[in-house]
Amino acid sequence: MIIDCHGHYTTAPAALWAWRKKQVAGQDPGPLRISDDEIRETLEKNQLRIQRERGTDLTFFSPRAGSMEHHVGDARVSEAWSRQCNDMIHRVCSLYPSNFAPVCQLPQSPGVPPENCIPELERCVKQLGFIGCNLNPDPSGGWWRSPPLGDRFWYPLYEKLVELEVPAMVHVSSSCNPAFHFTGAHYINADTTAFMQLIQCDLFKDFPTLKFVIPHGGGAVPYHWGRYRGLAQDMGRPPLKEYLLQNVFFDTCVYHLPGIELLLKVIPVENILFASEIVGAVRGVDPETGHYYDDTRRYIDAAGGLTAADREKIYSGNLRRVYPRFGARRAG
Amino acid sequence: MIIDCHGHYTTAPAALWAWRKKQVAGQDPGPLRISDDEIRETLEKNQLRIQRERGTDLTFFSPRAGSMEHHVGDARVSEAWSRQCNDMIHRVCSLYPSNFAPVCQLPQSPGVPPENCIPELERCVKQLGFIGCNLNPDPSGGWWRSPPLGDRFWYPLYEKLVELEVPAMVHVSSSCNPAFHFTGAHYINADTTAFMQLIQCDLFKDFPTLKFVIPHGGGAVPYHWGRYRGLAQDMGRPPLKEYLLQNVFFDTCVYHLPGIELLLKVIPVENILFASEIVGAVRGVDPETGHYYDDTRRYIDAAGGLTAADREKIYSGNLRRVYPRFGARRAG
Repeated sequence: MIIDCHGHYTTAPAALWAWRKKQVAGQDPGPLRISDDEIRETLEKNQLRIQRERGTDLTFFSPRAGSMEHHVGDARVSEAWSRQCNDMIHRVCSLYPSNFAPVCQLPQSPGVPPENCIPELERCVKQLGFIGCNLNPDPSGGWWRSPPLGDRFWYPLYEKLVELEVPAMVHVSSSCNPAFHFTGAHYINADTTAFMQLIQCDLFKDFPTLKFVIPHGGGAVPYHWGRYRGLAQDMGRPPLKEYLLQNVFFDTCVYHLPGIELLLKVIPVENILFASEIVGAVRGVDPETGHYYDDTRRYIDAAGGLTAADREKIYSGNLRRVYPRFGARRAG
Repeated sequence: MIIDCHGHYTTAPAALWAWRKKQVAGQDPGPLRISDDEIRETLEKNQLRIQRERGTDLTFFSPRAGSMEHHVGDARVSEAWSRQCNDMIHRVCSLYPSNFAPVCQLPQSPGVPPENCIPELERCVKQLGFIGCNLNPDPSGGWWRSPPLGDRFWYPLYEKLVELEVPAMVHVSSSCNPAFHFTGAHYINADTTAFMQLIQCDLFKDFPTLKFVIPHGGGAVPYHWGRYRGLAQDMGRPPLKEYLLQNVFFDTCVYHLPGIELLLKVIPVENILFASEIVGAVRGVDPETGHYYDDTRRYIDAAGGLTAADREKIYSGNLRRVYPRFGARRAG
């Protein structure tokens, strides 16, 4: 079985974005009216087609990351929007329970303590069967005004994640800072930044079972693995493998074979989760290979040095361990 | 000959930092008194010893990056400090002309148009024989309030760089944003951000001979080379090799063999400049190899697939081309 842990509903029906537009404009958006058939159409043409073409089985599916826009409006706006988006994901996963498993958006808001996210997190997990969430380390949208992830500011939310056995993918949203292109700089920078924040703190001493997924192949981290091992060492921290890799996992959203080969070479196979982020940041065909850039399964299948057992871990075994609510459901 | 294009005077005599401390405190720091012997001692014990031990010949040497601190004080403070730091570099290079070539700090200041840097740049290049400069894309120190590098805001400075035939290493300074560890997140993010800014603009149409060096192995860029090629393609840009790699170069400050191997695999050898950033961000010995993390020459010598001609390009040939004032001097 091949499970993709990183997919967003980028292709949601136009009515969802129209609802959001009205909400942001301060108009009453009214109830959201989208039929099941409309949802089916957006998926059949896109994610389900690609799953079939590439031979992947199931996608962990969350609202469009760039549209979380925690920086837009206040916490109430963020909450109403998150609820709407999460309900859409719930509908997708109810229509196609063997193709998608739900991951929720949190109603974060700049400067607001993240415990405000707990009610929506609980609703999603306890009532709707969500298995994971996306945590934005920068709800200001590119201005980076939140405390680092090791700060006690975040602890109430972490306590709830641990209690619910829900991992967080550390994923920013769009950037309103013109310095940062959102998918080309802000996303990758956030991955790198989050990992370095985790090197600097003792978060996993306080939360030994908390689990974070760093998307986009861990940002710059595997490429600079020697730098991070060396920085941790200079700071008197334990080796990263002992210290962070019990709790931190990298996905495989790296869109060329040499990058995937590096990831597989430096990061233990137990810490790698298959992902491709379809339909996502990069949508074209690589003229050097004739295949889609984001067809990451091809790279993993082509990479040397992996045993069948290694591939099984990357494609599903690790995911069941990191997302226990998914693992339990599938085992049951 | 082996030339290291990325070294900072991190070991400068204590009197320099004491001068700065007074300056920042608003006291009159008076004249800086440092003897030639004091300068020699800081270099003999450190950079010159390491050059001998590792068999490298010459380092392009600039003021300590983390101490540029363009965000501290106003443009006049930045100018006086830059002048002091650049004078130190000039003294180093005058004492050891076959071991060091001078690269200058620019007196940038947040919100101040960068043409304010032109007098100090001209002084360094025309009077003191400097061959390059460090350009900070974020003089706010981690808050990223400057326009992207493609913005006309920067053009007057670029015109002068082109006129003087001086390349710029795009290098941030310390971070006062607690989200960003300076060498673990801010530096690497800045490299990634700068490259993405260059994808988004037509800078090199306007300045076909302007040259930028992206340090730290290009941040996350080579690891995500498929992503960057794909993003450029989705944006309707020409292939990166045709479009940016005439003007953009990556150094080799990547502190483990798999990272260097990736860099060499995806980036054309003509675009790679040897560097190690001694005595810099990572100072320890890698327990996995028994050698210093920042001994990047070992990785390049160990990497497969390079011809002797390739190594010559990385170690010196490309550097003479990218830094024409150095190339001319050495040829003369």
